[in-house]
Amino acid sequence: SPSNSHLSLGTHSKNMYMHGGAVLLYEQWASYSVFYKYQPIGLIRSYFGEKVGLYFAWLGVYTQMLIPAAIIGVIVFLYGCATVDDNIPSMEICDPRNNITMCPLCDRACSYWKLVTACGTARASHLFDNPATVFFSIFMALWAVLFMEHWKRRQMRLNYVWDLMGFGEEEEVREPQRSGSDTSDKVKLTCTDRLPAYLTSVVMMGFMISVTFAIVFGVILYRISIKAALHISTYPAARSNIRATVKTTAAIINLIVIIILDEIYAAIARWLTILEVPKTDKSFEERLIFKTFILKFVNAFTPIVYLAFFRGRLVGRPGNYLYVVGSYRMEECAHAGCLMELCIQLCITMLGKQLIQNNLFEIGIPKLKKLLRKRKSEVTSLQEEEVKILKRYEKDHFLGPFAGINPEYMEMIIQFGMVTLFVASFPLAPLFALLNNIIEIRLDAKKFVMELRRPIAAKAKDIGIWYNLLRGLSKVAVIVNAFVIAFTSDFIPRLVYQYAYSPDSTMHGFVNHTLSYFNVSDFQKGTAPLEPMHLHYKVQICRYKDYREPPWSSTPYDLSKEFWAILAVRLAFVIVFQNVVMLMSDFVDWLIPDIPKDISLQIHKEKILMVELFMKEEQGKRLAVQDNHNQETCTIPSSDDQSPSRPRSHSVIHSKASW
Amino acid sequence: SPSNSHLSLGTHSKNMYMHGGAVLLYEQWASYSVFYKYQPIGLIRSYFGEKVGLYFAWLGVYTQMLIPAAIIGVIVFLYGCATVDDNIPSMEICDPRNNITMCPLCDRACSYWKLVTACGTARASHLFDNPATVFFSIFMALWAVLFMEHWKRRQMRLNYVWDLMGFGEEEEVREPQRSGSDTSDKVKLTCTDRLPAYLTSVVMMGFMISVTFAIVFGVILYRISIKAALHISTYPAARSNIRATVKTTAAIINLIVIIILDEIYAAIARWLTILEVPKTDKSFEERLIFKTFILKFVNAFTPIVYLAFFRGRLVGRPGNYLYVVGSYRMEECAHAGCLMELCIQLCITMLGKQLIQNNLFEIGIPKLKKLLRKRKSEVTSLQEEEVKILKRYEKDHFLGPFAGINPEYMEMIIQFGMVTLFVASFPLAPLFALLNNIIEIRLDAKKFVMELRRPIAAKAKDIGIWYNLLRGLSKVAVIVNAFVIAFTSDFIPRLVYQYAYSPDSTMHGFVNHTLSYFNVSDFQKGTAPLEPMHLHYKVQICRYKDYREPPWSSTPYDLSKEFWAILAVRLAFVIVFQNVVMLMSDFVDWLIPDIPKDISLQIHKEKILMVELFMKEEQGKRLAVQDNHNQETCTIPSSDDQSPSRPRSHSVIHSKASW
Repeated sequence: SPSNSHLSLGTHSKNMYMHGGAVLLYEQWASYSVFYKYQPIGLIRSYFGEKVGLYFAWLGVYTQMLIPAAIIGVIVFLYGCATVDDNIPSMEICDPRNNITMCPLCDRACSYWKLVTACGTARASHLFDNPATVFFSIFMALWAVLFMEHWKRRQMRLNYVWDLMGFGEEEEVREPQRSGSDTSDKVKLTCTDRLPAYLTSVVMMGFMISVTFAIVFGVILYRISIKAALHISTYPAARSNIRATVKTTAAIINLIVIIILDEIYAAIARWLTILEVPKTDKSFEERLIFKTFILKFVNAFTPIVYLAFFRGRLVGRPGNYLYVVGSYRMEECAHAGCLMELCIQLCITMLGKQLIQNNLFEIGIPKLKKLLRKRKSEVTSLQEEEVKILKRYEKDHFLGPFAGINPEYMEMIIQFGMVTLFVASFPLAPLFALLNNIIEIRLDAKKFVMELRRPIAAKAKDIGIWYNLLRGLSKVAVIVNAFVIAFTSDFIPRLVYQYAYSPDSTMHGFVNHTLSYFNVSDFQKGTAPLEPMHLHYKVQICRYKDYREPPWSSTPYDLSKEFWAILAVRLAFVIVFQNVVMLMSDFVDWLIPDIPKDISLQIHKEKILMVELFMKEEQGKRLAVQDNHNQETCTIPSSDDQSPSRPRSHSVIHSKASW
Repeated sequence: SPSNSHLSLGTHSKNMYMHGGAVLLYEQWASYSVFYKYQPIGLIRSYFGEKVGLYFAWLGVYTQMLIPAAIIGVIVFLYGCATVDDNIPSMEICDPRNNITMCPLCDRACSYWKLVTACGTARASHLFDNPATVFFSIFMALWAVLFMEHWKRRQMRLNYVWDLMGFGEEEEVREPQRSGSDTSDKVKLTCTDRLPAYLTSVVMMGFMISVTFAIVFGVILYRISIKAALHISTYPAARSNIRATVKTTAAIINLIVIIILDEIYAAIARWLTILEVPKTDKSFEERLIFKTFILKFVNAFTPIVYLAFFRGRLVGRPGNYLYVVGSYRMEECAHAGCLMELCIQLCITMLGKQLIQNNLFEIGIPKLKKLLRKRKSEVTSLQEEEVKILKRYEKDHFLGPFAGINPEYMEMIIQFGMVTLFVASFPLAPLFALLNNIIEIRLDAKKFVMELRRPIAAKAKDIGIWYNLLRGLSKVAVIVNAFVIAFTSDFIPRLVYQYAYSPDSTMHGFVNHTLSYFNVSDFQKGTAPLEPMHLHYKVQICRYKDYREPPWSSTPYDLSKEFWAILAVRLAFVIVFQNVVMLMSDFVDWLIPDIPKDISLQIHKEKILMVELFMKEEQGKRLAVQDNHNQETCTIPSSDDQSPSRPRSHSVIHSKASW
């Protein structure tokens, strides 16, 4: 009956043939050979329940949406590659004729260096720092909105097909023992009871976050000190590829730290949430997710944020450097800006994190555990052939327990963050994400079908808090991208130079314009380079990348007017970018209806049917009441539904005829 | 029955006693004596229908919410009054000892003037330009969000009480003759058919908007020319209060123009919408509202926006002024910034618009029309006593037709715009709005009950597009206020001076810092003042309000470093302000549930009842079918869907009893 699909009767959907289902799933879903096909969501749902079904549906939509993003990203990257040779700034840097002497990169040990040596990085950084990236980050902001809308519609459709329209999760109260405290708090907890727990959470969260910051800072110190050490070391081999070595090692350390901390943080978040004794299972889950998300997010993005926004801004200037812990100078960026290093960091984090987590954590460890369990049961002298004839639920004993799908979601959300937040600096991120997800889907499928015990089907109407987190991320992404373009990339300075300072409104002379002058006699004593190195002349003036007054001005080394002008333009760009993108997003959001047309029509029809049914019901009731008045005899037998119905049905027919 | 309120059966609510209802409404609602009471919304709804009821409910909520805003606004204003005497900048301006010679305000006719003469405006502008206004505009941004949330909840409650939960407006198609074209377009119109109409709309809208701009510019020219004329005129009386005269007259002209254009624009919007031949009545209304809103909004806010953001920025500098149409110099602001004039404009617009529109358009004209209709019918020799015994619907003939409530909404939305958009510059706006609305409610009530014919009760679930417009406005308000604080007020320059430039980090010397130097010998010939006027010495250097290099610098009269630094800070402030406020708004939005707790519980209960009822229904059907199998005699009557429903209904009654 049509109204059936309007009202969910709250029954859990169990499928009849368990093993058969598994086989079917394995063939149609859990093998790499079908990676290009859509997933059999209906089958997944009927085997694992709505909650898991929704996750895979969502993952499918996300992966599907990543395809266009990846394509555009690759095009943007290729555009960078194509235009690298007619990029005037990098040409000027690479041109040996204008040999510019740069100030040393570290005290005493380092010496003056020629700008030409930065040619490679300059050319490389153009790949990620070109006008196309601006367009791309706008595109990705809208992409995020489109993704949201697309998912909303898909979810609505699934809700309809799965009879979840009228389904609202009833919040069963958590039993105290599960919430990890004694039975005494079955009594309602007041705010004052909860306060200490909340305070603990807040404090702990703060502490954890500061731990992350500390570790990141530690890595920075490592980079600085190693660099200094390598500079002093006399191995030419070491000297030559100092930067590369340091960057990669540091990034790898970061990566390892992140992965380790992730595990720790997950445990801590769980513990804190249990402390809070949430009222319902739903709120427990949501609080847990939220905490875990905050911690993991900070953990994953702190190094990136540092690279994007702080690295190279806190260095001070020649003659007045900023020193940390004793005599370490804050590190500068390579000449062509920090964007390059940001890219490397992102690249390593994304690839590394995904590879390691996927292979090690998602395949390796489950397999290992399974093996161990098998071994254990064998130790208890169980013969192979016995294992053969074991019942399904006995075999399942060898499988790992089902840990819920929230870890899977979390992983994806962090990836979504990588894809949207810093896309301005790394247009290949969507491609990496796409490749990862194509594997991820089948990997998770395999895991769910073969490695883990089958979960109890859980009903769910939507992806819950995850949707809000996604929405939040895509909002933050807009402002972050605005800042990356405005401050991390050289986009704005180039623009300003071309239209305000350039004599012939070309980029010629841009490099010279970005370099300030420093008189080597103004070095603080003890910081000047030891040997002036293989330069055939005495260095009087060295250059450094900043907008400051020259030594011969009335206020030497002060921030110059250019600095303030460019800063103003940068900020203006942020305002314009943010508001334009937000406007466009709202427009797209308003343009696309949340409920697909056909579905909404169906729902409308069914409602009308419902109404008619109901009116009949009412009518019938009225008549029935009349009948009760008419024949008193009916009152006693009418207690049973069956017998009295006969005569009345006739009477109805008559009354109907009389209308 | 509880499920009755769950399903709306789509019947229009007609009330039984028409005249009695009117009297009741008059006593309890349509008289000023009850202004302090809540409105009898239920009664209004049962007399005028949901649509009107919702309007008055909304107006009530809005007025109620205005009370706290008005109070805070007054406090902020009083704070300004209290601190006016210890405001160092205005003290410095008013101090005759540091007599600063300012450059002339117009060519030739005007002469140099002493800064001391600007003392009054400087003191006055402090009332509206003090740190409290920053706080206030943040408060108002949050207030707007709270208002939205509050209304959402109220609406939900009304929906529940009025049985509108399941009600979705069915979109009846507009019949062609109403859409103003011949019957031939009963056939479905394709996009290509509609294109010309859409193009016309867009073009016309553009044209209308540019007309508004042209008129505003005309008023500006008027101001400039009059000022020049008055300067030349020799009447000291005229000279003395030049500014006041010009300001007020200009503002009044603006006001009149606005009011006249409003009427014209309403007609044009209607015409354009008819051209577009919308499919449904709903879309017709929405398109009409949207167009009217755009036009009226632009019309109302263009002069204000000009004052806030453009006035005094396009003047150029002494010796190189910007001239418009021949020899008119663009007007500058009074020394203490344009905020003062913005206030006057807002004040006049709000008061004037509301007074005139309320009294003239809403009382005067209806009364007049009524009178005319009476006179006409009297002309047709109708005796007074006959009028007495006339039937209600005959009497109604004397009343004006019901024009819909959209004009009322429109008026309120524009007012909402005034209250939220420029609240940073005029903290008394909420108070004005409140006073107006207290009258407005009763005025509309009187009009609806007595002046106009009773409308056909129209059903509505929400306030429709108006909600979106409100939401949009409150979003725009945030950024507009950010810009007003950053650029129109002197808040940021003061801050920067105090923390960056001030020798003793106080405000002392701020005025001097904001004034640039001009060497009078650099005047373009023919622009220097004719007579150096009653100054006992020859003026060498005059000052003007701008951040530019002094004449003796290497680049005289260029924008100085201070200018760029302050600009950067201003833009930074906009970014911070906008994002902080948006974050807080989202937080508030997330904090307050859209559906009141008790209502949601009720709805949940009723859904469960519905489900049970439905299951009984199903069960009954099954039983009935069995019966049909048992006795073949029943097969013929059971062909109509009535008879099987009998046992069902019965069982329901019993199950109800057994609860």
